[in-house]
Amino acid sequence: QIFTEIHSSMALNNPTPLGPWKITVYDQENFQGKRLEFTSACQNIMECSVDNIRSLKVECGAWAGYEHSSFCGQQFVLERGEYPHWESWSGSNAYHIERMMSFRPIWQNHKESKMVLFERENFIGRQWEINDDYPSLQAMGWSNNEIGSMQVQSGAWVCYQFPGYRGYQYIMECDRHGGEYKHYREWGSHAQSFQVQSLRRIQQ
Amino acid sequence: QIFTEIHSSMALNNPTPLGPWKITVYDQENFQGKRLEFTSACQNIMECSVDNIRSLKVECGAWAGYEHSSFCGQQFVLERGEYPHWESWSGSNAYHIERMMSFRPIWQNHKESKMVLFERENFIGRQWEINDDYPSLQAMGWSNNEIGSMQVQSGAWVCYQFPGYRGYQYIMECDRHGGEYKHYREWGSHAQSFQVQSLRRIQQ
Repeated sequence: QIFTEIHSSMALNNPTPLGPWKITVYDQENFQGKRLEFTSACQNIMECSVDNIRSLKVECGAWAGYEHSSFCGQQFVLERGEYPHWESWSGSNAYHIERMMSFRPIWQNHKESKMVLFERENFIGRQWEINDDYPSLQAMGWSNNEIGSMQVQSGAWVCYQFPGYRGYQYIMECDRHGGEYKHYREWGSHAQSFQVQSLRRIQQ
Repeated sequence: QIFTEIHSSMALNNPTPLGPWKITVYDQENFQGKRLEFTSACQNIMECSVDNIRSLKVECGAWAGYEHSSFCGQQFVLERGEYPHWESWSGSNAYHIERMMSFRPIWQNHKESKMVLFERENFIGRQWEINDDYPSLQAMGWSNNEIGSMQVQSGAWVCYQFPGYRGYQYIMECDRHGGEYKHYREWGSHAQSFQVQSLRRIQQ
């Protein structure tokens, strides 16, 4: 009962005075070593005299983390909570290079997340408009383990290679590329195929 | 448009004549080697003259996979789709022993999934009744990165160590333990702490 009250007030009022995004990163695992706080994007952590990020806490908002500087390489969706080491934010199928060199806030509004999936690249073939989370697209009737192209009409989404939100993460946003992802080559530099078996809204 | 029709008919009619659960397992990666189909639990894959499961396809229903025989060790929630190798079903934080020796269907009814979270073990402290998916419990107002105990009132759930459905998976069911999980020692033999930062319903 007490908890519910706290929860409501947090949902109604911004819990921190620092604005909608805050992330704290550390250059050692388990929140040790040099500590840096950010409320906006960091294009290259080495410019802050840190060689790599080895643990982090998201205190406010949702963030996209990247393997390389300038928002390149493997993508990691980072929502509020504690990530004590690389395995806690990487995907189950990630190639094992323990690097996170850049990150940025994700803009979204979960109340109106909407996306259209297309069977084939360039927005052709069968299509399906979605506005919910799907731990298994095939369980909901999608015919195979691939999506050809995607049009994000509102909000931000994360797609995954395997069912149950596993494997490579691909962050798709209304506010980037005009929300249009017409081939897997536009999903991120780490994408090597059309394989997507689960996806969900990014909600905070 | 065409797709939507297929989807509706699949949702209304059982897509296979084999009942609500079907899984096909292979003793080599990428759906190669010896192939076995199951519509009910398998307590020890070695009794089928297979030394290990190295890829699988879930064709119907949701399943729980286990590292060891007799449903022991690390747990893996398996929903409809294709899993070409161990990394495609293991969690991002899994210790790297590529074994899956037993599996069983998960009974659930997503229309009424309900669970109560408790701040401390033995169902004490602050509590929160949930009936939705939470990629970040802290974003929704839960005060720390741990849950003391859980009472599943209906449906089946999967809890995760880290935000965004990452790390160890703990499958929690209304129909097991009377739905009561009063200490992390009851979550599974691989559980080593109270840490839970995301959870979701198992929906098919």
